[in-house]
Amino acid sequence: MLRLSIALLHHPVLNKSGEMIGSAVTNLDLHDISRAARTYGVTDFFIATPYEDQLQLVDEIIGHWQNGHGASANPARKEALSVVRPVSDLDEIINKLSARYNQKVLVVATSARQQPKETSYKALRGQIDKNESPVLLLFGTAHGLAPEIIKKADTVLPPIANNSDYNHLSVRSAVSIILDRLVGELE
Amino acid sequence: MLRLSIALLHHPVLNKSGEMIGSAVTNLDLHDISRAARTYGVTDFFIATPYEDQLQLVDEIIGHWQNGHGASANPARKEALSVVRPVSDLDEIINKLSARYNQKVLVVATSARQQPKETSYKALRGQIDKNESPVLLLFGTAHGLAPEIIKKADTVLPPIANNSDYNHLSVRSAVSIILDRLVGELE
Repeated sequence: MLRLSIALLHHPVLNKSGEMIGSAVTNLDLHDISRAARTYGVTDFFIATPYEDQLQLVDEIIGHWQNGHGASANPARKEALSVVRPVSDLDEIINKLSARYNQKVLVVATSARQQPKETSYKALRGQIDKNESPVLLLFGTAHGLAPEIIKKADTVLPPIANNSDYNHLSVRSAVSIILDRLVGELE
Repeated sequence: MLRLSIALLHHPVLNKSGEMIGSAVTNLDLHDISRAARTYGVTDFFIATPYEDQLQLVDEIIGHWQNGHGASANPARKEALSVVRPVSDLDEIINKLSARYNQKVLVVATSARQQPKETSYKALRGQIDKNESPVLLLFGTAHGLAPEIIKKADTVLPPIANNSDYNHLSVRSAVSIILDRLVGELE
């Protein structure tokens, strides 16, 4: 049984100038990332924002696809969105997971820039396989997770395209690729 | 020098009921997929649609980011969108690439369903490494490429999540994952 969750943080994240901001939730992140999460067997896709109106927007979108017209029109989308969990911040996520598993959760940040205390994809894949502790992957919106979140994490994955001269993937692409590297089917 | 192109076909593709349709171009496919293409060193991201108004829409979007306000506001996006090539159909793409390389192009379809004449990701990665022929990857919008396109291709990649009980990734996720499997950095 895979014990892997992902979280998309909308605060605190960085803007283009490196300032700390809160970003807006986007409908498309919800759809694309929940579909990837469900495909790879991720148990929970946490959407974290401290803003009440944003949490309400998430509830409305999920409601449309879970109970509204969308549920009958597109049952596959209903199933994908069933993994979405709106929360206010990282502490709430860690509390929820620790309570569920009664165990410390390994918190893994992601970044498009190299960071101290990196763990390779291969090594983390091995840890997930062994299943000694539940794993939570953190993704940032806007220009990435704020340093205080990176510091709070137990470890950080290396940039996806470390050697490319261009590394501006969407967070939707980044989540998909990282899930595939960590739990995708091997040939 | 990587000789790898990708194409997103909007016709002929299938709808939910398996009927052949033409789908609408979406702004988000352009952005997310061009960013992934540029990150992985793909030379061309062909957007194929037979509809004049859709081709015009693509030109307008690209124009905004190449020459309009978007170009100065977000130079990284300008660079990503520089790989986008609007075309009318697969034949036009194959003609363009054959003329450029003066050589037959290996046309590789993708599908969320198993198909005859599959080539594994590992085998295709090896072929791309050897660089004996240019490679074109085909992706379908809506519910996937029509059978006539699959038949036209030289080979087909296996479904990304062959063993999952849920396999409804967005085409944006699928492109990202497949590029990573074929030309992503190995640990």
